[in-house]
Amino acid sequence: MSQEESMEQNFFKQHISQRFNAELEEIHRQVMSMGGLVEEQLTDAVKAMVEGRMELAEKVVVSDYKVNALEVKIDEESTQIIVRRQPTASDLRLVVAVIKTITDLERIGDEAERIGRMALHFLELDRQTGPIKELGDLGEHVRGMLNSALDAFARMDVEQAVRVAQLDINADSQYEVIIHRLMDQMMKYPDTIPRVMDVVWTARSLERIGDRARNICEYVVYFVRGKNVRHISYDQMVQEATGDRR
Amino acid sequence: MSQEESMEQNFFKQHISQRFNAELEEIHRQVMSMGGLVEEQLTDAVKAMVEGRMELAEKVVVSDYKVNALEVKIDEESTQIIVRRQPTASDLRLVVAVIKTITDLERIGDEAERIGRMALHFLELDRQTGPIKELGDLGEHVRGMLNSALDAFARMDVEQAVRVAQLDINADSQYEVIIHRLMDQMMKYPDTIPRVMDVVWTARSLERIGDRARNICEYVVYFVRGKNVRHISYDQMVQEATGDRR
Repeated sequence: MSQEESMEQNFFKQHISQRFNAELEEIHRQVMSMGGLVEEQLTDAVKAMVEGRMELAEKVVVSDYKVNALEVKIDEESTQIIVRRQPTASDLRLVVAVIKTITDLERIGDEAERIGRMALHFLELDRQTGPIKELGDLGEHVRGMLNSALDAFARMDVEQAVRVAQLDINADSQYEVIIHRLMDQMMKYPDTIPRVMDVVWTARSLERIGDRARNICEYVVYFVRGKNVRHISYDQMVQEATGDRR
Repeated sequence: MSQEESMEQNFFKQHISQRFNAELEEIHRQVMSMGGLVEEQLTDAVKAMVEGRMELAEKVVVSDYKVNALEVKIDEESTQIIVRRQPTASDLRLVVAVIKTITDLERIGDEAERIGRMALHFLELDRQTGPIKELGDLGEHVRGMLNSALDAFARMDVEQAVRVAQLDINADSQYEVIIHRLMDQMMKYPDTIPRVMDVVWTARSLERIGDRARNICEYVVYFVRGKNVRHISYDQMVQEATGDRR
């Protein structure tokens, strides 16, 4: 953590106002803490579904309000910083990146809660086999993406952000494989359809979480390069990200 | 339109800088035009799916880039306004509401594109019956929500925003009914599963579009009342929205 903290100093500009420095560092710190909570929610939700851990499913569902409360708090503090400090250039980009990142984190939290609810429903019916292992693999993949995206955000590391964004291709293809296997299973054993649909929704949520982790990576590139890299291909994103530093 | 324009004058503060007035009105106007395009995309996508109109499905898929380009443009102009004008109070809330609204509009555009792609796939297989009529009804309901949410945004009408947000309850229950009917159909006719899953994904996209229309309503309340009404119940939202005017 101390290494991380010292790297953070590199991208926070030093302002004459010590208070302004402290405010920017504080919202950045809060995003990291919200990210940690969301990652924990995701880990628990996937474990609940894959390992049949009912108590973890319940924990995820009752904890979602904490994620929501953090989003509202950070959102308000960020708007206050714009009002009080009238930031420009990279300071403003940092605040905008924070506002956008917490929206995606909150929605990842929502998806984790959905998976938790699905797990509660799924575990009430009796558990079946099917591509639960693959679901666990996809869960682990997107959890890793989220963790690395947050790490890229912590250090505002644009190279890592681009690497993580590319992992989303892999998440999408794992997702397609799972959906096809689930459709086969439903066709072969129609009486399992209600249970299999819980697995379908879980896979879908995980795929969406991968998309949102990619979004966070795009905000890192936006902060560092001052360029909006949404809606462009990975090749173009690599080019933008490896362009001249400003 | 002229009535709408004259009402818009009511919530735009008049600044000493004529140019600042013009800039704020311009991004607001651009959001409305982006909203119109997204609404058209949604209408075409639902028609393509429900009426089997292949040419509309293709139109939706090739037009999504226009929505994305508008988002990037408005996002950049909004950030520029913060830098140049250092807005405070309701001006800043307007710019923040714009930045958040275009994110949701862009994602509604993505869902419309997904429905368009689903329609292309669905129409290649041969069309089946099933709850296509109900899908059309849900599509019409969320299109109406989006239209009214944009209208509330156009006039910054907080009472209408709350009314529209409440319509999301209805969208969710229509969605649940459709999903249950689709599961029944899959259990009875397992060979239709691949086609039925296209309808499942379409229903899911429509349900998400309802959520996002509700988000836009929340930004209207945020702009007018200066209060974040996310994550609270409808009753609380009505209270906040009908509270004393500032």
